[in-house]
Amino acid sequence: MAVIPSLSSKQVKTFMEAAVKEAEAAGKRGEVPIGAVIVKDGQIIASAGNRREEDQKTDAHAEMHAILKANEIMGSWRLEETALFVTLEPCLMCAGAILNARIPLVYFGAQDKKAGAVTSLYSVFDDDRLNHQVKVVPGVLKEESAALLKTFFQGLRAKQKAAKKALKESAARGFEKGAQAEK
Amino acid sequence: MAVIPSLSSKQVKTFMEAAVKEAEAAGKRGEVPIGAVIVKDGQIIASAGNRREEDQKTDAHAEMHAILKANEIMGSWRLEETALFVTLEPCLMCAGAILNARIPLVYFGAQDKKAGAVTSLYSVFDDDRLNHQVKVVPGVLKEESAALLKTFFQGLRAKQKAAKKALKESAARGFEKGAQAEK
Repeated sequence: MAVIPSLSSKQVKTFMEAAVKEAEAAGKRGEVPIGAVIVKDGQIIASAGNRREEDQKTDAHAEMHAILKANEIMGSWRLEETALFVTLEPCLMCAGAILNARIPLVYFGAQDKKAGAVTSLYSVFDDDRLNHQVKVVPGVLKEESAALLKTFFQGLRAKQKAAKKALKESAARGFEKGAQAEK
Repeated sequence: MAVIPSLSSKQVKTFMEAAVKEAEAAGKRGEVPIGAVIVKDGQIIASAGNRREEDQKTDAHAEMHAILKANEIMGSWRLEETALFVTLEPCLMCAGAILNARIPLVYFGAQDKKAGAVTSLYSVFDDDRLNHQVKVVPGVLKEESAALLKTFFQGLRAKQKAAKKALKESAARGFEKGAQAEK
């Protein structure tokens, strides 16, 4: 039987705040702002932010990096008696890694309606055909987690719009120049 | 629209044979014998075997290692226009990584009825709610792939039985010694 860590509501808030900080730092590096921490015996043993663009690695989601760091700390691919905190609902890859790592407890912030594998599209943590189940607590600091993502994507869209406008203007200038050259 | 590589049946056999060789090598290292290769433009660009026990990393499945190698070769977290060959049906983590990498085509050998996320427990490659779908061809060299796993687990069980027997005998000897000392 998996040992599920027992955490106070104060601890839960503190650990998710640490995950939010990782998400903020990821956003500042130009990554989709998602952060994760892993806790054992009431202490953070690993923390990471999304690094997919920087690393250009498929697995560079916050949860995967946190899991790999915790593997090193614990010297094992099994992360029993830990809890994982992440600002966004895990995708299939990360939820699968959490299952493979035998992590017994996951807290997440915002829901991911397009790719979430825990409550949105799938409920893989609650599948008794698998050899492990995970207790999941959704919605912790969900407003903060979602706001970071919203601001990031608004900024991205504004940048894309500005770039499109600049390209259009530069093409128009090129056309004018061409027209002048033809004169 | 994803470009799905077109491979001849001879190529498919050759590439799966390469995955089987990776699985055999993994088995010789004491790992569960699973192997994978990734192909682009008719060439193997990455190959890997399971290394979970050696690395003690949750993500050290054959497919994940092959994906990470291909990321390096292609300089991108996206592995478009590639095909992945793996001797065992991918688990949720690996299937999720294949989806995240936008790999359009997967061939696998044996089915994994306990954890397979592609045809056994889930059909995640065929989920039109996700932003990517994967064409899947199951059962390629399935006998060879399954035989490797069967032999490995038979060997493991034999070793465990022998270890148990040795422990029992040594405990019995300890008891005899204890009984003699009491005399």
